[in-house]
Amino acid sequence: MAERFEKEWEGFFGDAWRDDINVRDFIQKNYTEYTGDESFLAGPTEATNKLWGELQKLQKEERAKGGVLDMETEVVSGLTAYGPGYINEDLKDLEQVVGLQTDKPLKRAFMPYGGIRMAEQACTTYGYQPSEKLHEIFTKYHKTHNQAVFDVYTPEMKKARHSHVITGLPDTYGRGRIVGDYRRVALYGIDFLIEKKQEDFANCISGDMTNDIVQLREEIAEQIRALKGMKEMAAAYGYDISRPASNAKEAVQWLYFGYLAAIKTQNGAAMSVGRVSTFLDIYIQRDLLNGTIDEAHAQELIDHLVMKFRMVKFARIPSYNELFSGDPVWATLEVGGMSNDGRSLVTKTCFRFLHTLENMGPSPEPNLTVLYTVNLPTKFRAYASKVSIATSSIQYENDEVMRPVWGDDYSICCCVSATQTGKEMQFFGARANLAKCLTYAINGGVDEKNHEQVGPKYRPITSEYLDYDEVMEKFDDMMEWLAGLYVNTLNAIQYMHDKYYYEAAEMALIDTDVRRTFATGIAGFSHVVDSISAIKYAKVKTVRDENGLVVDYETEGEFPRYGNDDDRADDIAVWLLKTFMNKIKKHHTYRNSEPTTSILTITSNVVYGKATGALPDGRKAGEPLSPGANPAYGAEQSGLLASLNSVAKLPYEYALDGISNTQTINPSALGNEDEERKYNLVSVLDGYFKKGAHHLNVNVFGTEKLIDAMEHPEKEEYANFTIRVSGYAVKFIDLTREQQLDVISRTCHDHL
Amino acid sequence: MAERFEKEWEGFFGDAWRDDINVRDFIQKNYTEYTGDESFLAGPTEATNKLWGELQKLQKEERAKGGVLDMETEVVSGLTAYGPGYINEDLKDLEQVVGLQTDKPLKRAFMPYGGIRMAEQACTTYGYQPSEKLHEIFTKYHKTHNQAVFDVYTPEMKKARHSHVITGLPDTYGRGRIVGDYRRVALYGIDFLIEKKQEDFANCISGDMTNDIVQLREEIAEQIRALKGMKEMAAAYGYDISRPASNAKEAVQWLYFGYLAAIKTQNGAAMSVGRVSTFLDIYIQRDLLNGTIDEAHAQELIDHLVMKFRMVKFARIPSYNELFSGDPVWATLEVGGMSNDGRSLVTKTCFRFLHTLENMGPSPEPNLTVLYTVNLPTKFRAYASKVSIATSSIQYENDEVMRPVWGDDYSICCCVSATQTGKEMQFFGARANLAKCLTYAINGGVDEKNHEQVGPKYRPITSEYLDYDEVMEKFDDMMEWLAGLYVNTLNAIQYMHDKYYYEAAEMALIDTDVRRTFATGIAGFSHVVDSISAIKYAKVKTVRDENGLVVDYETEGEFPRYGNDDDRADDIAVWLLKTFMNKIKKHHTYRNSEPTTSILTITSNVVYGKATGALPDGRKAGEPLSPGANPAYGAEQSGLLASLNSVAKLPYEYALDGISNTQTINPSALGNEDEERKYNLVSVLDGYFKKGAHHLNVNVFGTEKLIDAMEHPEKEEYANFTIRVSGYAVKFIDLTREQQLDVISRTCHDHL
Repeated sequence: MAERFEKEWEGFFGDAWRDDINVRDFIQKNYTEYTGDESFLAGPTEATNKLWGELQKLQKEERAKGGVLDMETEVVSGLTAYGPGYINEDLKDLEQVVGLQTDKPLKRAFMPYGGIRMAEQACTTYGYQPSEKLHEIFTKYHKTHNQAVFDVYTPEMKKARHSHVITGLPDTYGRGRIVGDYRRVALYGIDFLIEKKQEDFANCISGDMTNDIVQLREEIAEQIRALKGMKEMAAAYGYDISRPASNAKEAVQWLYFGYLAAIKTQNGAAMSVGRVSTFLDIYIQRDLLNGTIDEAHAQELIDHLVMKFRMVKFARIPSYNELFSGDPVWATLEVGGMSNDGRSLVTKTCFRFLHTLENMGPSPEPNLTVLYTVNLPTKFRAYASKVSIATSSIQYENDEVMRPVWGDDYSICCCVSATQTGKEMQFFGARANLAKCLTYAINGGVDEKNHEQVGPKYRPITSEYLDYDEVMEKFDDMMEWLAGLYVNTLNAIQYMHDKYYYEAAEMALIDTDVRRTFATGIAGFSHVVDSISAIKYAKVKTVRDENGLVVDYETEGEFPRYGNDDDRADDIAVWLLKTFMNKIKKHHTYRNSEPTTSILTITSNVVYGKATGALPDGRKAGEPLSPGANPAYGAEQSGLLASLNSVAKLPYEYALDGISNTQTINPSALGNEDEERKYNLVSVLDGYFKKGAHHLNVNVFGTEKLIDAMEHPEKEEYANFTIRVSGYAVKFIDLTREQQLDVISRTCHDHL
Repeated sequence: MAERFEKEWEGFFGDAWRDDINVRDFIQKNYTEYTGDESFLAGPTEATNKLWGELQKLQKEERAKGGVLDMETEVVSGLTAYGPGYINEDLKDLEQVVGLQTDKPLKRAFMPYGGIRMAEQACTTYGYQPSEKLHEIFTKYHKTHNQAVFDVYTPEMKKARHSHVITGLPDTYGRGRIVGDYRRVALYGIDFLIEKKQEDFANCISGDMTNDIVQLREEIAEQIRALKGMKEMAAAYGYDISRPASNAKEAVQWLYFGYLAAIKTQNGAAMSVGRVSTFLDIYIQRDLLNGTIDEAHAQELIDHLVMKFRMVKFARIPSYNELFSGDPVWATLEVGGMSNDGRSLVTKTCFRFLHTLENMGPSPEPNLTVLYTVNLPTKFRAYASKVSIATSSIQYENDEVMRPVWGDDYSICCCVSATQTGKEMQFFGARANLAKCLTYAINGGVDEKNHEQVGPKYRPITSEYLDYDEVMEKFDDMMEWLAGLYVNTLNAIQYMHDKYYYEAAEMALIDTDVRRTFATGIAGFSHVVDSISAIKYAKVKTVRDENGLVVDYETEGEFPRYGNDDDRADDIAVWLLKTFMNKIKKHHTYRNSEPTTSILTITSNVVYGKATGALPDGRKAGEPLSPGANPAYGAEQSGLLASLNSVAKLPYEYALDGISNTQTINPSALGNEDEERKYNLVSVLDGYFKKGAHHLNVNVFGTEKLIDAMEHPEKEEYANFTIRVSGYAVKFIDLTREQQLDVISRTCHDHL
């Protein structure tokens, strides 16, 4: 085997990765850490400028047409559904990296397997007429994931879903959050991967043919079929990916073909790219050393790859867009992080990826993520900070808390959720609205919005003033119910997704013996914490409607709030997380996957808030919840660092799916000069992550800029004005006015 | 509920069946046992003669066209795929029972869910061009059962299948053998059945949403969908089956609609009707009593229903036809049997069903089965015997051995396999070729035909003469291997059948809390028994080919043979059955179903024999195996009764899926006169079944008639000449010459 790919693997070190698939070993044996600064970076090439100009024209057209440039209605998306497509047919020779989801740039594919009604609604929303033939096929002959899930839901599940106490479930769209190890395509070529999967297939039975074995064998068969499809897909572009990539250009291209296979076959909420920078750097470094490329060319490869990630689109429906605003796809891509042996994994290509934000301006996608630790080279931290301040397009995640759990080759599969690259997949599960759960505890399971008995008919609270012990007992009971219902709902969803919409192309690039996590999530976190604190430390009077239902609260006196580094509130936060997670763990989870949870709401905090009544913390009915693990709006009274300290107290071990925190800092709070600001932000990040915090979205701008952009979206400077929201980035002008107002109302820290 | 269907249930007794689905209770409380003779029966009406004449014309045309009259290529079969169809549009008012599988009589439907390649091959075999559109749908969008099974097969499974050591597997066609309780449609109407299934759906979860629960919930949802489809299907014929049948005509029609739903949606090998005669008799009796119909009308209803069963057709491929010769569908229908309380379940309608063989002549379908016991009324036994002698179209099964296991309302779901009606389903699993397994034991797992290593690489026998102890040890090891491989192969098949070709319409008419059996089967039974006997009692010399493989045997000396009431051989038979069944039981079976086995080969004994080398009992390579549990051809030297005694020794408890025995008696052996013959046959049956035997196919004719029919198929008298083969009946002239020769070579008993 060692001599098998003599040419392609020339100059590479190490052995273990040659006989078995082991990309991590390849990286460890071959990467060149870079501790210098950004001065080596090259600006955009002429080709980059031209293509990016073309793409910006298309993006403008897209916005002018209401958000969708073009849609497919007659062809079902698939690996080989289309011939080759280019950004601009006349400029195709300029494209260093080729491959579109459909036949035309920004044209959205027709993807009915998740649900034909959604696929069709996406078409009609934008004025396209769905195909009658495909309608017949996906209603009469082939059942969809969505249909199947609704076939098995219980009335209780439907009610909980309808009332939004369980919310954002992936039952009308792809679950996403599976990161294929796209690097494998480059390093091994498809034929080797097929061989390995065939070996797995042969080894996947000993003893009885149980359902688990049958299911896995069929999945491997589908994976092999997908690998063959990838070869065919690449061949249409003139590339033979049956063998490994033999240079940097091919490595970038092969890797992208792997990713393209994923986004041609799945429309998951999150379709992350993974941790590719240090891997690609090895190829670029080899070519730089042997003189076949120069830095300008190297940067061009990365720029063009990133351009492709900026073009990923899915056809969505309005209710989806409300949850996940601004057309995100979570093409999350990591740079940085540490090796287990103490070296950082920072390479020049980590710089190059960040540099795309300068070469082509800010952009929400790919969702650039720095795996952060104080141990990263200082100059890299400083450069990231600089780009962050300039573009507000970067998020940071704590490598020191993730590495012990996931090793040193994990990827972020959505906003903040780590998975071992190529060794793990996640069953994505959206979230439970614990704020609503608290109102159910108070009202005996009756929904405060639609007045239906959604939860169990437990005794409601009938007193005028809330008693802390009584509320806590009832809340515990109600969380117990919600956790069970939630897990069972997800069990049904994941079963059907595997049955009707299996991710063969992504799983083909992941080990057969895969680790599976079962992700749950919490919404309304800070409001529950503050409400409990109010009940405990202040006096909360119930306000009832004519039916005796508690619909509002009058809180008298002061109480500590989460977000001020006050243990009285922060201890409640820790208790809440641990308690809910422990209740989740009690239940059977599909395929014996490992249950995890997240505190993470993306932009859905607005929709979730709409569906949630008033709370004892003073939040009024219908107001947005605070996003993710963020303290409630206005609760943070003690500055940025105190707020960060509160969030940092949440134990990552109980929220392995991630703890999302989004902060906005007024540039002036960081100092008066660029250099000062850069190092001050580094200090903030160092301090925050040293405390064991998990994640931070960094926005650096003032509220006044947001207001101006809201009022004057037509200004050229706002065309690509990107902000970080909970877990991803978005072009501010792509948000609805309601969401813009929500963002504006969030705390903007004027001092540290 | 009791008053719910005042009109429809007028005059019916009992309560339990009114609130819950309980057809057995309805029958028990309402049926009228009939102990008289056949003198009340009416001949065919003019309408019957006309319609049957039409049908015979069509059947003649069908034979003239090579076996298929017409085929669908553009429409996928389904409950509502077609509008109404009639035997003859001009005579449709004569049809007391309406409903065709497609739009035209004898036109075969296109059923791709089991396997698109098979569906297409069936078309092209008969000169029809399959639809390109449907090809695309069932290759690109919807996977079929066949594709899925082959996706998961191991190389070992494929080899075993290819060499025919495991054989006849339902991996290219529907597994069949599920008998919906079609009577429910008549007694309750569809709306009540939907209600009950909705209740089941609501009750189908407590605790965690495991895979089992998700699967069952989806199945119930599909069942409810199918029930709604049945209403729509019936409405196309002008009938509203949402309510129960209100008279005999409706009862027959409603019941048939239930069955029609099954055969429109599934092309299982066996699509049995079940136990309907006594149920229908209750409705007929009520109408006769209130004077709305007379006997001629009653018989007409049954004749027309039976005519419909004679019309059931599926599109098959040549390899299927080789296994199951003569176009059978196993529309098995039972009459007779006893109630648990000691009454017989014989009614006038049991007579009426047998009488159809007189009114419309012999016919292979429906597969008429008498549930026999000496306790049945004498005049009924005599009548059955008389019709048997005249038509050779009846099989007999022992109610005394089946009733203790399955209760008094079981149906036969194929040839000989009992299932509790409406409470049970079977996972059909074809059979393991134990004769071949014996050759593998001798040759160390190497196949004697294709010289491949199919079985495990155990040490072969190297001696010139076979040593009994050595052979038995090796045979035991090889059976151990075969049983495990066989069960695992079936586990894969049943999983995929549920996944890709679930029998929603049939299961909709069966209790949700269903009992599931996992049927296996044995082929080559008598040859293994006789071979072991030869090794034990005579001297068996091996004949080896140039590779040292044993390819033939020379047996010196006498040895006892199974079929002569000789315990020395018959004990081996019992040992073989018990040993194999115990090995099957060791393994996990899909959905924790109950493993059973059968000794049953249908006409496939010819194909199985072709694939099997020579055996120590003297059977030469390639010669047909003896069918089912029948003694080997020529082995029976002691007359019919001795032969029957041998078979009767096999313990039914170890072969709950049935023990098939087919015998041919020369009319002269039964006596010289009709009356004498009739009672002699009754005596034979009484004696045989009293010994605890399970099943008997009765043919009464001489070999000379077979030879004449083979040579002169054009003779009018042979047009409907029906014979019983292993487990079903077939028109003799529809067999291939090879199979005809096989039938001719079977023992025809000239004396008792």
